[in-house]
Amino acid sequence: MRYAPLTQAIQGETVDAWDIHFKATSLKERDPSVIILSIGDPEFDTPTTVIDTAIEGLRSGDTHYVEIEGRDNLRSKIAEQHQIKCAQQVTKDNVILLAGAQNALFASSMCILEPGDEAIVLQPMYVTYEACIQLTGAKLIPVAMDKENNFCLDVEALEQAITDKTKAIFFATPNNPTGVMLNKQELQLIADLAIKHDLWVVSDEVYSHTIFEGEHVSIAGLENMAERTITLNSLSKSHAMTGWRVGWAIGPTELIGHLSNLSLCMLYGLPGFIQQAAYTALTDTDALADSESMRLSYLRRRDRLLKCFQQHPKLSCITPQASMFLLVNVSQTGLSSQEFAEALFEQQKIGVLPAAAFGQCASDFIRISYVVDDKQLEDACNRIDSFMQQFSLAECS
Amino acid sequence: MRYAPLTQAIQGETVDAWDIHFKATSLKERDPSVIILSIGDPEFDTPTTVIDTAIEGLRSGDTHYVEIEGRDNLRSKIAEQHQIKCAQQVTKDNVILLAGAQNALFASSMCILEPGDEAIVLQPMYVTYEACIQLTGAKLIPVAMDKENNFCLDVEALEQAITDKTKAIFFATPNNPTGVMLNKQELQLIADLAIKHDLWVVSDEVYSHTIFEGEHVSIAGLENMAERTITLNSLSKSHAMTGWRVGWAIGPTELIGHLSNLSLCMLYGLPGFIQQAAYTALTDTDALADSESMRLSYLRRRDRLLKCFQQHPKLSCITPQASMFLLVNVSQTGLSSQEFAEALFEQQKIGVLPAAAFGQCASDFIRISYVVDDKQLEDACNRIDSFMQQFSLAECS
Repeated sequence: MRYAPLTQAIQGETVDAWDIHFKATSLKERDPSVIILSIGDPEFDTPTTVIDTAIEGLRSGDTHYVEIEGRDNLRSKIAEQHQIKCAQQVTKDNVILLAGAQNALFASSMCILEPGDEAIVLQPMYVTYEACIQLTGAKLIPVAMDKENNFCLDVEALEQAITDKTKAIFFATPNNPTGVMLNKQELQLIADLAIKHDLWVVSDEVYSHTIFEGEHVSIAGLENMAERTITLNSLSKSHAMTGWRVGWAIGPTELIGHLSNLSLCMLYGLPGFIQQAAYTALTDTDALADSESMRLSYLRRRDRLLKCFQQHPKLSCITPQASMFLLVNVSQTGLSSQEFAEALFEQQKIGVLPAAAFGQCASDFIRISYVVDDKQLEDACNRIDSFMQQFSLAECS
Repeated sequence: MRYAPLTQAIQGETVDAWDIHFKATSLKERDPSVIILSIGDPEFDTPTTVIDTAIEGLRSGDTHYVEIEGRDNLRSKIAEQHQIKCAQQVTKDNVILLAGAQNALFASSMCILEPGDEAIVLQPMYVTYEACIQLTGAKLIPVAMDKENNFCLDVEALEQAITDKTKAIFFATPNNPTGVMLNKQELQLIADLAIKHDLWVVSDEVYSHTIFEGEHVSIAGLENMAERTITLNSLSKSHAMTGWRVGWAIGPTELIGHLSNLSLCMLYGLPGFIQQAAYTALTDTDALADSESMRLSYLRRRDRLLKCFQQHPKLSCITPQASMFLLVNVSQTGLSSQEFAEALFEQQKIGVLPAAAFGQCASDFIRISYVVDDKQLEDACNRIDSFMQQFSLAECS
């Protein structure tokens, strides 16, 4: 049977990168000593009050169709919190609830990109950007961040990548996998280019609640950017709610109208009991305290990992300002990142991700997710220390 | 800002049809005597054991990422039940879980249709088909069912509509809004044409659990049809779980692979606690008994409405074999279906849907959803009787 060409556009070439992760999760079913540091799924439970609200919603019969865009109280709360954080004037009419930031990225791409367009994405980038952009018929133009300089913005490379076909610039800040945030000066440079060339900006800010140092800035809050910016966010990372599939897009009301039409034929709304739970996540004191406690745990774990890697001269790290990921440059070991990750799994039963999946500029790196508890992380650090001994020995021989 | 042309393709023209529904739901907030018969959302609660399972899942921490295609046990159970019902040999590898049959229709359209294609849809059709097909760049070719003959298949019209651009035939059986099922002979005629012209068939069977008379036949079970058929189904109607957003597509393994790639960048899986609840819906004795009890309620209500309408010579009905909808031809009243629906709302505070939204061939009809309890339905019948008096009087004057 004949399939649409779109099916080719969504066949990611980065699937191989997950091989070690799949091997590790498979082995862990038989061998609990396996440590999985290869996926961005917090091991924390969803805050109890959020769970309780969902249960109340289920028990009270909130299981019927709901408003396609999401409920007014939830959209208003999202707008209110975005406005406080990002200095962009918004109301509920600038917000649509979708099934995770992933779904919001997908839907936003569909509403702004078309065949013939070029969409610039700052690399490293999360692996699903490729499919989301290519399925619209647009061409993805990667622009590498400056890996020699802590993956900060290479504004010259960005400017050179813009052509008369460019329709949008996509990026994540804080970034997955680097954990680096774009600062206000960098965002202003992007904004200037977007305004000059009349481009959309899609800003994925799902890690903006998990910041260790520095200030998160939303490009939508910069002058004249609100009309051309789509901000994506979710509860997945901030509240350990990856499986709930709750996210949103914030943008011009006309865009929200188009996204709403799309959601009508794509999703038909999110479950009401999940929307109630999401409102609790954003407003309940205990839920917010749980979220803050998670952030502090990530900070503690990041520092433990940094301490570990800094002991090994053949490894060097990008210090993440945010998120739950650490990029480690393994090129000085003489192994490729794929070989390093395979050896670490074979010898020490630790699953990490070769970061080439996130873009060529990250190919010297492995990505480590610090989503296990302190005890397991300590164990992982010890195993990494053991693993690294072979490289010291090689140096002496 | 410039939007993708797709945003035009998803701007349904049928939105006006919902005006009365929106007015009615708005008035009902102030006036509980309003009766809403304009939407297909069962008033039943989700079966208790299904709710309980979701709660257990939430409490046990089943709130993390899950397999993109859905869990093996759930997909296996869906495959097993489909095979028993439809005589098509399938395994879990022929099944993907998606966020409702709506999402499955959307995703299936994206994987098989492309610009330049024509997709035939048997009319009347549910309102979101238009957007799902048009957003792929394909052209929707409506083929009217034979309204003079209880909306059965007009095979000549179907054959004439097929061109060398035709890629697929879409239909719903049982149909929304007619409640009519395609019988085995009709499905064989469609199958013959699909095989002759090498076409996909997308069969939306979400009402196949709510059948009053006759036997539901799945076209996928007919000879040589499995390789070219996508069967859509969900728990929304069978278990009063509209708000849960659980549906699936069943088709060739290659299609499921493409749908899985699409779901990776579109949804990233359904909540685990919802998947647990879905498994209970399909297997638990009490949940299945609840579902059967709902079916019997719909049957009782259908018969009550038929009795009501048959008393009024200026109205004629299509007797639904299935579903929760009744089409009533109002053309003999001298009013258009829009005028009739408006007058019924203004005079009797009953919200019904002018059926033109489902296709030109249904424009003489209103659609009545029998999704209210017996007491309200009795009240509605009495009000309809009162409403119809003016037309009898007009005849005598």
